[in-house]
Order: sequence, then C-alpha cells, then structure tokens
Amino acid sequence: MQTRELRVTFQPSGRSVFVLPGTLLLEATGRAGVALQAPCGGRGTCGKCQVRILDGQCPPSAADQRVLSVEQIQQGYRLACQSYIDEPMTVEIPAESRLDAAQQILTTHAGRDTVLNPVVSKRFFHLTAPTSQNAVSDVARLKVAIGDIAVPFHLLVKLSGFLRGHNWQGTAVVAGDRLIGLEAGDTSQDAYGVALDLGTTTVVGTLFDLVTGEEKAVSSSINPQVGFGDDVISRISRVRENRTGLNDLQQAALKAANSIVHDLGAQAGVDARHIYETVIAGNSTMQQLLCGLDPSALGEVPFVQTFDDGLTIPAQALGLAVNPGGEVFIFPQIGGFVGGDTVASMLAVGLEATEEPTLLVDIGTNGEIVLAHEGKLYATSAAAGPAFEGARIVQGMRATAGAIEKVLIGENVLLNVIGNTQPVGICGTAIIDAVAELLRTGIVDKTGRLLPASEAPAGLPEWLRTRLVTMDGQTHFLLVPAEEAGSGDAIYLWQKDVRELQLATGAIRAGINILLRRVGLEPDDLGSILLAGAFGNFIRRSNARRIGLLPQIPCARIHFIGNAAALGAKLALLSADERVRAERLRRRTEHVDLSLDREFQMEFGMAMMFPEADVDACMEAPAD
Amino acid sequence: MQTRELRVTFQPSGRSVFVLPGTLLLEATGRAGVALQAPCGGRGTCGKCQVRILDGQCPPSAADQRVLSVEQIQQGYRLACQSYIDEPMTVEIPAESRLDAAQQILTTHAGRDTVLNPVVSKRFFHLTAPTSQNAVSDVARLKVAIGDIAVPFHLLVKLSGFLRGHNWQGTAVVAGDRLIGLEAGDTSQDAYGVALDLGTTTVVGTLFDLVTGEEKAVSSSINPQVGFGDDVISRISRVRENRTGLNDLQQAALKAANSIVHDLGAQAGVDARHIYETVIAGNSTMQQLLCGLDPSALGEVPFVQTFDDGLTIPAQALGLAVNPGGEVFIFPQIGGFVGGDTVASMLAVGLEATEEPTLLVDIGTNGEIVLAHEGKLYATSAAAGPAFEGARIVQGMRATAGAIEKVLIGENVLLNVIGNTQPVGICGTAIIDAVAELLRTGIVDKTGRLLPASEAPAGLPEWLRTRLVTMDGQTHFLLVPAEEAGSGDAIYLWQKDVRELQLATGAIRAGINILLRRVGLEPDDLGSILLAGAFGNFIRRSNARRIGLLPQIPCARIHFIGNAAALGAKLALLSADERVRAERLRRRTEHVDLSLDREFQMEFGMAMMFPEADVDACMEAPAD
Repeated sequence: MQTRELRVTFQPSGRSVFVLPGTLLLEATGRAGVALQAPCGGRGTCGKCQVRILDGQCPPSAADQRVLSVEQIQQGYRLACQSYIDEPMTVEIPAESRLDAAQQILTTHAGRDTVLNPVVSKRFFHLTAPTSQNAVSDVARLKVAIGDIAVPFHLLVKLSGFLRGHNWQGTAVVAGDRLIGLEAGDTSQDAYGVALDLGTTTVVGTLFDLVTGEEKAVSSSINPQVGFGDDVISRISRVRENRTGLNDLQQAALKAANSIVHDLGAQAGVDARHIYETVIAGNSTMQQLLCGLDPSALGEVPFVQTFDDGLTIPAQALGLAVNPGGEVFIFPQIGGFVGGDTVASMLAVGLEATEEPTLLVDIGTNGEIVLAHEGKLYATSAAAGPAFEGARIVQGMRATAGAIEKVLIGENVLLNVIGNTQPVGICGTAIIDAVAELLRTGIVDKTGRLLPASEAPAGLPEWLRTRLVTMDGQTHFLLVPAEEAGSGDAIYLWQKDVRELQLATGAIRAGINILLRRVGLEPDDLGSILLAGAFGNFIRRSNARRIGLLPQIPCARIHFIGNAAALGAKLALLSADERVRAERLRRRTEHVDLSLDREFQMEFGMAMMFPEADVDACMEAPAD
Repeated sequence: MQTRELRVTFQPSGRSVFVLPGTLLLEATGRAGVALQAPCGGRGTCGKCQVRILDGQCPPSAADQRVLSVEQIQQGYRLACQSYIDEPMTVEIPAESRLDAAQQILTTHAGRDTVLNPVVSKRFFHLTAPTSQNAVSDVARLKVAIGDIAVPFHLLVKLSGFLRGHNWQGTAVVAGDRLIGLEAGDTSQDAYGVALDLGTTTVVGTLFDLVTGEEKAVSSSINPQVGFGDDVISRISRVRENRTGLNDLQQAALKAANSIVHDLGAQAGVDARHIYETVIAGNSTMQQLLCGLDPSALGEVPFVQTFDDGLTIPAQALGLAVNPGGEVFIFPQIGGFVGGDTVASMLAVGLEATEEPTLLVDIGTNGEIVLAHEGKLYATSAAAGPAFEGARIVQGMRATAGAIEKVLIGENVLLNVIGNTQPVGICGTAIIDAVAELLRTGIVDKTGRLLPASEAPAGLPEWLRTRLVTMDGQTHFLLVPAEEAGSGDAIYLWQKDVRELQLATGAIRAGINILLRRVGLEPDDLGSILLAGAFGNFIRRSNARRIGLLPQIPCARIHFIGNAAALGAKLALLSADERVRAERLRRRTEHVDLSLDREFQMEFGMAMMFPEADVDACMEAPAD
C-alpha cells in the first residue's frame, strides 16, 4: 500500500515536489532545485530564507514571530528553515531569498561572497589607426586598449590582417592574462560558459551567461560509458583489458559532453562558438577518462591518479565542440578515488571556513567523506559497492519509474513508488527505510538477521508477522504481494539484501569513524553532517542514522546540500577566485587511505553491526 | 695595383686574417672572430687582453711595460689593445683572455657577468614507484624530483604510461617552468641550442652545447629570399603584391634555417632532436617573414611592426626541424626598421650600462643607430639605400671575390681585391676609401663633384691627373685600367657613384646628428662609437670619418664590435637572464622616427656635404 505524499508547488518556477508530511520547507525547496540562503545554518536567526505561503496552512513558528513583522506574517511570509509541511501547498520563493540572489553576488555562504569574475572576459576595442606620431607595434596598440595580455602565436599571425581588415575594431576574448580570440564587431555581450557535472551514470551540463552570471539552460544525459560497465571499476578494467578501451571511453564521454553542449546552445539560442569556458567536475576516473588520461593505476593498489592540480586544457585539444580558442578547466583531485567532484562540493559549501567540525559525505558506489576540523581537511573514499544503487540487491533497481523509493511501517506497510505506478523493484533509499523499520519493529536484529516468524518479538502485530517468509533456512520480508506488483511477482526484502546493505553501510561508517578518530573527535562533536550528491538527497536522515550509516547526532545537524559538485563547478566557472580557492582546498586536504589504517578491518566489522537502538529517534518529531 | 696585406695567424684556432700594416692586434683578433676581454675599453690599463706573440716582431708598448712582468714580456706576452701589426705574425690567444673565457662565465663586459643559465635544462630522474604509504599522483611524484614545473596537456597524456613503461626513470626537458619533453634513459647531457643570425642576405647559425656553453659548429647560407629581391623593401613589396608572397618568403627563410640546423647537427654529430632552443635575431622584416607575420605595414608610412616584446614560439608551430617540443625565441623589436638584430647588438655590448655617451651604429641598407646617454636609449633607422652593398653603383658589386674592397692613393693607386684575383667591380668599403682619398687629394670637392683634370689642384701628380676622365660633361676617376680588369673593361668611380654615396652617408649621418641633438650632445662628447655588423667591420674608420659618415672623433674611440647581433643571440640562448635583459633594453629604448624631425631635411642636406677636412686625420698614426 502506498502512502500519499503532499504536493508542494513553488512559484515563480511552477515546479512541484512530493514530500512526506512533516518535511521541512527548506528541504522541500532544495528538492525542487532551489537553494535558499541560510547563513545561520537553519537556526531561524538570520531571516534570509523567507518564503511566502500562497496556498495552504502553515502556522507561524516562534522564529517567524521573532524575525518577521506582524504584517509580513499576515502576508504569508515564513522562514523556510522553521516551517513544516502538513498539507499540500503553493509557495512563492522571493528572488532575494535564493542562494544565487544578486547577479553580481553569486553566493553568500560560509561567510564569503563570490563576485562574478569569470576567467574569460570579452573586451570591445576601437583603436586609432597608426600615425607617424603613434607608430607603436600592432600588439602594443592592442594592449593599450585591452590591457597587458599575452598574445599567443596563432593569434599574432592573424592580428595585423584582422586590425586592418576590420577598421581597427573588434572584440578581444581574454582568458586570465592571455588572448584566446579575436572577433569582428562588438560581441562583448556574447560570452557563455558551461559547468559540467560528469557523473559515472549521468552527465549534467548547465549553460551560464558569463556577462550576467545568469543560468540559461540545463541539459543532461546518461553517461554513454555505462555501455562499458556500470561503475568506475568496470570502466577501468575495460581500459586495462582492451587496447582501444581508453579511446572508446574517452570518446563516449566526449560524445555526451558535446551533445549536451549542443543541446544547451539550442535551448538558449546561443551559438556554441560563444562558449569559451567549460568547467568539469567528476570523480577521478571520470575526469581522467574524459581527458584521455589512462586510469589503469586507479585500478590497482595503491590507486594512483595521474594529476592533482586542476588542469586548464585547450577545448580543441580535448575535442570539445565550443569556441576553438576556448578552454576547459578540470577540477583538482585529492587522491585515489577522491576526485574533482569532491573538491567541487567542498568549494560549494565553503568547507575550509567552517567553524565547527563538519563532515561532508557523498554516498555512492564510492562514498567520499571529508572532515573539516580546526582549519584542517581530511578526505577519504570508502568502497560501498553498488547496493545503494540497487545493484546486488535481489529485486533491486535504480531509482527510476516503478522503483519503491520509500518504506514506512505503521499500521500497514506504506510504500512510495517513483512515477505513481505499480512497484517492480526496490531502490537504495527504500532498502535503508525497510531495514530501519524492521530494526525498529525488532524483526531484524543487530547482527542483521531477519528473524523467522517464530522468533519475532512477541508483541508484533499478526499482519506483520505473516510477512516473514522463511525459505531455504533464511527469512525474508514480503514488501509487495504478487497481486500488487507490476510484474505479478511478489517483492521481498531478502536476507541477502540486508547483508549487502551491511557491507555498504559498514564501509562508509568505518570511513567516518576513522576520520573522526584521526582528529580525536566523537560523533557528537560534529556541528553538522552535509549530505551531498543525488543519493544523499533522497535518503531519510533518521533511517540512515538508525542503520548506523550516519552517526547518532540530531537530524537538525544533518543537512542535505543537493548537487554541491554542480554548484562548485558553477562557482569555478563564474569566478577565477573560486578556482584559486579550489586549488587551495586541494592542497590543504590530506588524503587518508583507509586500507592503511591498522584498525580498518575492526572498524569495518563493527560498523556492519546495526546500532542497538536509535538513541534519540524522537528528538526531532516532524523532519523525516 | 694591389697592396700587400699582412697575414696574422692565431693559435690555437689556426685561423688567419689579412690586415693592413699598422692595424691594432685587438682589432685583428676581432676580425678572426675572437673577442678579447677589454673592460678598460682598450686603454691598456686592465691587462685582460693579453696575447702571446709566437712568431714575428712586436715591440713592447709602454702599457706592456707597466702592466706585464719582464718575464712575461720576454715570453712574448703583449696587450692586444696596445700592439700594432707591422709584419706577418703568429699569435697565441690564451683562453683566459677570451671574452667567453670561463665556461660558466660567458662574457664579462659592460661590467656584468653572464652565467650559463639557459632557458632549457634537462633533468634525469629516477622515482620510487608508488606504495600505499606514498600514493601521490604521477604529476606530484615527478615534481618532487624535478621541481614544481607545469606539465602541458599533451605530455600529461603520456606521463603515466611513460613512467610505468620506463621503470619510473627518464629525463625531463624543462623550459623555464614548463615541461617540454620526456625522454627515456639519461639524456641529460644531450642538450643543444642554435643561435640564428637571420640577415637579409646571409643566415648564420651557431650550435651551442647548453650543458657546457661550448660552441659546437657554425653554418651559414645565403638567405634564399634574395630570389625575391635584394633588400627588405623588395621583399615587403612581394608580400603586398603577390597572394602567395608571404608564404613563399616564410618558406624560403625556414628552408634556410632548417638546412643550417641540419648542417650544424651533421658537423657536430648532434641529433636535431636534441636541439631544444633556437634564438633568432634579425631585422624587423626578416623576423616577421620567418614567423609568417605579414610585414605589409612595414612597407608604408608610418612603418608599423606587428610585435615588440620578444616571442616564444613552439618550434613545431613555426616548422623548425628540431625537437618537437622545442621552442624558438624571436628577439624583441624596437620599432619601424629597428629590429631584433639591433636589440641583440645592444645586449651584446651592454649598452644599458655604458658610463659615457655611446653610439652603436650598424651600417647597411638600413642603418640602425642607437645612442645611450645617462641611462636612456634612443634608436632610429636611416634609409641609406643599397650603395654600401655596391648596388646602384655603376660598377658596384657585393663584397665577394673580384670586388675591390680597399683603395689607397699614395705613390700609386693601391687596391685590395677580395680573393686575390683580377678586379671586376667595386664594393662599399672601397667606394668610401676612394672618395675619402679623392677628397684628400682635392679631386672631389665638398659638394661631391669630381673635378675635371683642368680644375684639379695644381700640385696633383700627373699620373693621378690622367686618371680623371671627362665624359658627357661629368668627370669620373679611373680605378683600374682595362688591361688590369677581370672583365677587360676599365673600372671607374663614376660621378654618379659619389652622388649615391652622398645620399647613403647623408642619411646615416643625419640620423646620428638628430639623436645627438635630441640629448644635447656634440659629437666630441661621445665616449665611443661602436661599429656593428658585417659592413661596419670592414670599413676604414678614418675614411668613414673623412667622408662624414662618422663624426669627427679620434679613431681610438671608434670600435669594431664584429657581429654583435650574433653574440647577442648567443647570450640569449645561453642565459635566461640575458633574455630578460633584452626585453628590458627594448622597453627602455625610445624609437625616434627621423621623418618626424622638423629639421631632418636640413640635417640630411647638410650631412650630404663632405667635411672640409678630416680635422684630426693624423691624430692616430697606425690604426687604419
């Protein structure tokens, strides 16, 4: 039986999301792809995350009454960080509450402003023709107008003809202190860039106007490399085992990037020749494959990357179909499987400037974990395996239409299915939910064993007990009876599925524990845990905590930060300073190799055991 | 009748030169291509220019007796700057007297030392393979060994495979702070560079070992562009008038450069792949043509160059057949026709550090003139026309075999002919000589008119008077009777030739005068005049002064500095600091456009008139 979620529609975008009753409004805006300003960290003190309830009831909180005027409250204004959703509603998001509010000030977070200052700028010039009184060289004449920039040889060769053929005027395209293009006429307003989030599974590109900072279009596609294997390890194996593997994989990634660039241009009516900068953030393997850098050494101990400083590559050398003089910035990488996407996330959340100990966690096939403490940064990756993506789960599937994505056990088994269709399988978030609920009901014990009906707790309702089905000496839990399933086959949470979840959870949690131990912190010392990435955004925090994936800290300190890597890529696209900051973050971060930790096996073993109880499961009521 | 010159042979090189009796030994060494140290400026005080007379008589000078010990004098040691050649001799040049004495100290002149510090260096590395304890990226691992250098993308792509395929060892080729190559094994001793003196007529390349600073080979060829015209103006016209002109001329220059590079490698047994740096110094037109930079704007008022800062170009982009990662440095240019060769000469003589007002003059079709005074530099070019190269002279020719290159009128007309053959024509130096001698004898008056026999001075010997031949109302001077000439036709100095020389001389001298006037100096304030370039080296100083080409200052202050442009190119090849110094010289030099000077026409007209007399023709007896 599926539980009914509440629809929340946001204006002016018109986007809707479905959330469980009791979801924080700030979280719902995040799921709708709109990040709000919340410099106080959602404590209800800064008043920056104001939204306006257009339709639906939402009683004012104590913080609303403290921060907002009576008139504002009457007009429907609320602080999103203090408002919970209990019925369907329509909510207006004022432009000034958005994280990317002002056009010049891109973001205000982690105590810093990011000013629009892209690496590429265009400068219209109209020179006076040489006279005997002013017969300086053509290069010197140009520099007077556009500044002391280096003119590369291939442009120097066309400079004299260009100036004389265009009446001494035109537009210079400048990247940093180098000229990268000369264009006829005044094209100074036509400058665009792409931020590309290069995932193992999905590639997402966003087109930005480099003059205004505005987002112009978004386009995404499946990474065609999935044809060579689902995860990075299978891609690396392909390169190691097949002579053309590296080229095949590079071309696949380039094809996706180029088709996204083409689509972005078409959507926004922008000529690809006016795209001069592309910033790419991906994991180590994705970044190296795109660049044609052999990732074989990432396929064996001790997992060595080719590069660590960010790369600036001519777009033409890479084969990207943008302006021929354009450049590509590849994010710096930290080490092993901690790649550019992690650095981009760290940049987006301003991890170098956090005042309290902060943990950044991106849960995936490889979980990347970064701990910031007293100005120092420690990063590691944990091989969680593909369980969170539904793989190796008996009836698992990706989070696509037909996947059970949420499980609640109350007076019945309530399920949420993506696409509001009949369920055909179970995806990662629902596996976490199911196990957490079974732990709460006592059906799964702390070792991960599903108890047979005969051993289940005495007080267990009969309707629940009947769902415990023992086959071949193991017990499994019936999630969907055959008659309710899309395929006609019943859907179970199998004992083996719990084991897979334990392996995945244990790896991530061991990583967290080892980083904490390294700096002498207890979990409760953490000021916040930031959950990044697609998967992290759909997880239920209390359930993740219940199964031990996250440490036992109040949910209020666990924040969803959405696709932080994409935000980091955007920042590095729109601001040269942010690019410098990214390099600094990389250099300041120590890469911790878990396999070198003497106690890793013990930590891993212990972390696979489920906690006795969620010590403070009730300390936040409505969140999730 | 030819006069006999004296042969001087130098050891250990074995090179010989022929000089007139009374020539300074320091000058003779220069003509043999060996520059001696003379920080005192040839005043006989520093004692650095010691040579040893092995064969021939050379009485010790007062300076020798002051500076050298009795024993040294007995052993044949003399100061080259104080010794005159009066008979054939053999002279040993001790290594420590050479300007490029020590291997690490290339030159000591103008108060500075040039340390061997080429832009390109090679570093052998043997890295430890990655371990779990040390799993930094391949780039980081390499940088620990060879320093924090930038790795360009095309080398990054091969780095991981290279390191693993070569047991983590190899040789890095580094240019400045950039990696330009990776080579298997230890090739750190195989690093070569070429200094290329790119003349309008002749191209000379010298191969240097960048590890030791040693000169390995010299090769030269005619610039094949002469097929498109003798001078820069005809080359520029070719580009302006012919669609393929620029490409034709560039390819011609490249062909010469490449065949010289090939020949240098063959001579020295050096693989062209081990040539990483090429430094090129040429005039504005030559430099632009080689680079494929359209010189059309140099072909019309106001004579604009494409660039002024020095260029660093990938050898591959230029098409130079050296190491594919190699680089080419093109000398900075000052403005108009004052090009890279002038900057190279300025660098070679340390013009920025001269204490007295110093004039650098390179006489050619375009004369380049630089005045250094009180730390400021002024440069101009004067369009002398081709008279000094024998063109537009009725029976003129280049300084090749059969050319009369020297004329002395004493008890007879004494001629020196290049190649000791019968004369077939007259080259630039001899025209200057002839006119100077005819001025001295009163046969040419100060307006440049050759007097007919009837108007010639009363005391003129009859044998000389008979050489004055009047045809068509003008008088000409018989240099070689028909029976002594190679062609069987008599050779004359024609009245028209004198007019051409006046035009050429007037242009250069007007340039000198305008620069002097600009800083408020009189000719006699000049501490020295430095004569650079091939032509300048063969001129007779007193005769150049007699015809007014050079101001009336003592010959002792007029110095031949040989092919200073080639020396400048060498310095920039062997030392990155010298390259910086060249850029600084360019920026510190003001380009003076003679045509903008209000009094240019007047100066020019006045400078075409010959001086009444050589005011101090006898103030140095034996020099030349």
